[in-house]
Amino acid sequence: MRNILLTISFDGTAYHGWQVQENAVTVQQTLQDAYEKICGSRDNITGCSRTDSGVHANMYCCNIRTLSEMPCQKLVEAMNAVLPDDISVSDCADVPYDFHARYDCKSKEYIYQIWNSPNKNPFLYKYSYRHKYPLDADFLDAQAKQFIRKADFRAFCAAGSSVEDTVRDVTQAEVKRDGDLVTFRVCANGFLYNMVRIMTGTLLDISSGKIPPGTIEDIILSGDRQRAGFTARPEGLFLNKVIY
Amino acid sequence: MRNILLTISFDGTAYHGWQVQENAVTVQQTLQDAYEKICGSRDNITGCSRTDSGVHANMYCCNIRTLSEMPCQKLVEAMNAVLPDDISVSDCADVPYDFHARYDCKSKEYIYQIWNSPNKNPFLYKYSYRHKYPLDADFLDAQAKQFIRKADFRAFCAAGSSVEDTVRDVTQAEVKRDGDLVTFRVCANGFLYNMVRIMTGTLLDISSGKIPPGTIEDIILSGDRQRAGFTARPEGLFLNKVIY
Repeated sequence: MRNILLTISFDGTAYHGWQVQENAVTVQQTLQDAYEKICGSRDNITGCSRTDSGVHANMYCCNIRTLSEMPCQKLVEAMNAVLPDDISVSDCADVPYDFHARYDCKSKEYIYQIWNSPNKNPFLYKYSYRHKYPLDADFLDAQAKQFIRKADFRAFCAAGSSVEDTVRDVTQAEVKRDGDLVTFRVCANGFLYNMVRIMTGTLLDISSGKIPPGTIEDIILSGDRQRAGFTARPEGLFLNKVIY
Repeated sequence: MRNILLTISFDGTAYHGWQVQENAVTVQQTLQDAYEKICGSRDNITGCSRTDSGVHANMYCCNIRTLSEMPCQKLVEAMNAVLPDDISVSDCADVPYDFHARYDCKSKEYIYQIWNSPNKNPFLYKYSYRHKYPLDADFLDAQAKQFIRKADFRAFCAAGSSVEDTVRDVTQAEVKRDGDLVTFRVCANGFLYNMVRIMTGTLLDISSGKIPPGTIEDIILSGDRQRAGFTARPEGLFLNKVIY
């Protein structure tokens, strides 16, 4: 039995997130079906994280413990031939048998794309959140820097999450503008449920004056979800990097 | 009665091209329906060119002779509120009554995007043609320079076109690489039916050795469609600029 690590990317528009569920098309299910078609074995594929409906991934990692002996390069080609166009396998590698895509992940990077223009962008509406009113990216970048800390981030966790340890170590956070596209980028050793979407909503609420500037540290310390901003829509969110 | 010029952009994936036709959703029809909903009048919208099914536009212009007196800025906002997300109106301007979006067009620029990688790109498969084998962009750029001339381009026109004057003045043609994305850009005073897609297919056929390098001038002079390359798929093609 071997253990292989697949690196993939996907457009999440058509999927109900990563995780297999009844009566819904998910990325995990689609990958497992493709793998079964190729290798003939119904193996479980372990992902590096859950993702919400409509969220995308420029890079996502998952591992498969399998009896298949297909060489990695051949598996990449076969998977890409069978998978739909909105999921792509970019790499495959043999890894130690005890490697686990979620538990062994050291850090992840997410980006959240905001289309900041009075005009709609017909090519980005599935890949960004549209915010009509001008955003000051430098100002928001300074606000976002307050996210950088090891702290209890429960104020930035959706209600209903069953996670007990809500301490996370956020190592990078920045906001940058490229033309009409404003991108929030954040790295941490792990993320709570909806954490990046609530961080983004908080930055947008600071921009619109609903939340006072300079209060992100206070909100974190309060541990109060009510004080943080709204949960920004899923389509602007991309898992961008996974580091082991 | 006034005449207004609309500048729009659209993702052509869901449309059977620009022109109104029976039993098919087109961009022109969708715009006319939105305009009627807003202004109450069923006015014909005149486009700057026909486009094929699945072809996109970063910039497309069309004019409307109308009795509506709605101010331009208000019309832009109202149209964007009513139109689907894959069509966006970016500008509206009053123009002289005899202005015609097609006849008064001085030149157009098209780009054709080629995703040149062994890996699929799940975000670009609707917006590019995928070519697995490495392309030498500098070599193709040198080949493409032979397109720059005023000449009879009937060798680069799809069979079945009823156009009589097949002379066009190609003023710019270039191939550039940006990472895995190779873009062919071409400007002319006008284009024949499928002309950019056949130009692109010819460049790809030169790359793969099916057509000898340095023969684009000969192919143009021959006037023989059979000597030019294949018609590249529509989804890589974007109308990029319209100049009056």
